[in-house]
Amino acid sequence: MSEYKISIIGSGNVATHLSLALHKAGHEIVSVYSRTKANARILANKINAEVSDTIVSDKQPDIYIVSVSDDAISEVSRELKEEKGIVMHTSGSVGIDILTDNIKRCGVLYPLQTFSVKKSVEMNSVPFFIEASDNTVLDTIQNLAQSVTQKVTVADSRERMLLHISAVFACNFTNHMFAIADSILNSAGLSIDIIKPLINETVEKIDKLSPVDAQTGPAVRNDKDVIEKHLKMLEGKENLRDIYKFMTNSIYRYKK
Amino acid sequence: MSEYKISIIGSGNVATHLSLALHKAGHEIVSVYSRTKANARILANKINAEVSDTIVSDKQPDIYIVSVSDDAISEVSRELKEEKGIVMHTSGSVGIDILTDNIKRCGVLYPLQTFSVKKSVEMNSVPFFIEASDNTVLDTIQNLAQSVTQKVTVADSRERMLLHISAVFACNFTNHMFAIADSILNSAGLSIDIIKPLINETVEKIDKLSPVDAQTGPAVRNDKDVIEKHLKMLEGKENLRDIYKFMTNSIYRYKK
Repeated sequence: MSEYKISIIGSGNVATHLSLALHKAGHEIVSVYSRTKANARILANKINAEVSDTIVSDKQPDIYIVSVSDDAISEVSRELKEEKGIVMHTSGSVGIDILTDNIKRCGVLYPLQTFSVKKSVEMNSVPFFIEASDNTVLDTIQNLAQSVTQKVTVADSRERMLLHISAVFACNFTNHMFAIADSILNSAGLSIDIIKPLINETVEKIDKLSPVDAQTGPAVRNDKDVIEKHLKMLEGKENLRDIYKFMTNSIYRYKK
Repeated sequence: MSEYKISIIGSGNVATHLSLALHKAGHEIVSVYSRTKANARILANKINAEVSDTIVSDKQPDIYIVSVSDDAISEVSRELKEEKGIVMHTSGSVGIDILTDNIKRCGVLYPLQTFSVKKSVEMNSVPFFIEASDNTVLDTIQNLAQSVTQKVTVADSRERMLLHISAVFACNFTNHMFAIADSILNSAGLSIDIIKPLINETVEKIDKLSPVDAQTGPAVRNDKDVIEKHLKMLEGKENLRDIYKFMTNSIYRYKK
């Protein structure tokens, strides 16, 4: 396995988890840059790296990983215009073209996972989607990705965005459903723990059945009495009522 | 453990899984009645029971379990008015009062789980919520529930409905999010399998963090560029666009 000298730009959830995995895989993280220097320091300490005061690192890295908010990628890439290292971003919904405008050897390294700094992740089962400016760069990104995960797939920018959108539904919106359930249970003096077997079974079911076949509940049964009762119980919580109605109609429409 | 003679009214998802668990626990399912006689036959064969042509069983059961659609419970209970056996329904959102109008010894046995006939369930970790017309009946229902699960809780009709509503969000609506993600992935020639590590992590996270703390993605970051791109990509799929917008606003509003 090739080991690379890597400079990290960013110190958020993705930057943190990716840096930890790359460090563990034997790469040398030579520097960390972040607009929030305190966060750069916290991350750098975890991976035995130095904090850089500038986006351009003075350590001549083989690779820059730009893991910043989407709207900052373009600005960062302009700063890296003269650098010899390969520049890659980690975003699901930003095309590779945002880099190719400024950088000759560039690419994308997108881990399809939900990362929170406070929760560790088993990186070797996370699917990574990669894209590159040319085949030589693609080989490098592939080597890099394969050093931390078993699942590496080449995907173009359009496919990557569809993956990201599906992740928004299956993860972000799903987690929001858990947050709402949690608040309803709390209002009854109950804990979300009580529905964890239900949540686990909901996920296990889609290993056996397609989600459409696995659908249960009042919406798919078009059980209007129950739906009316639930909406009445949610009176005063208009946002929850609206979501309830919207989802109920959508489930019914999806019915086979 | 007491063993009971049980008559089952209904042959749907809940009736099937509950009957299988009760049969396995050593109770005698003496008869199965269903409006759809073919389904009654299929269920009866699995649990060594007879099919009854009438709601009232001629086997003098100790217990009638009425596991039918919510709007049919009242009608069924009227038929059972003269019976000596305890009558219980299994619905989350129907009060016990629907039975007490007609039946002296009655109650509720509500398993908080998603059941599909085609998928087996580990019943002993399913939480059951019970309610009864009096304490003697409550003892019987408790014995019955404890014969199939370790988790039995007494809950009144209002608490049960709040549990049911939270289950609709955490299970039914969550599963619908999976169905939508599946359709988006299929449109890109991809399988839902690719996001299963993401889904598993989404669920694992809420063991460590509250759902509000676990929230990630463009909505909670208020990343307007990404949100706009996703909405553009979903053009022509107005239902998905509407859900996307609605959920995004709701997540942002829930932000701590």
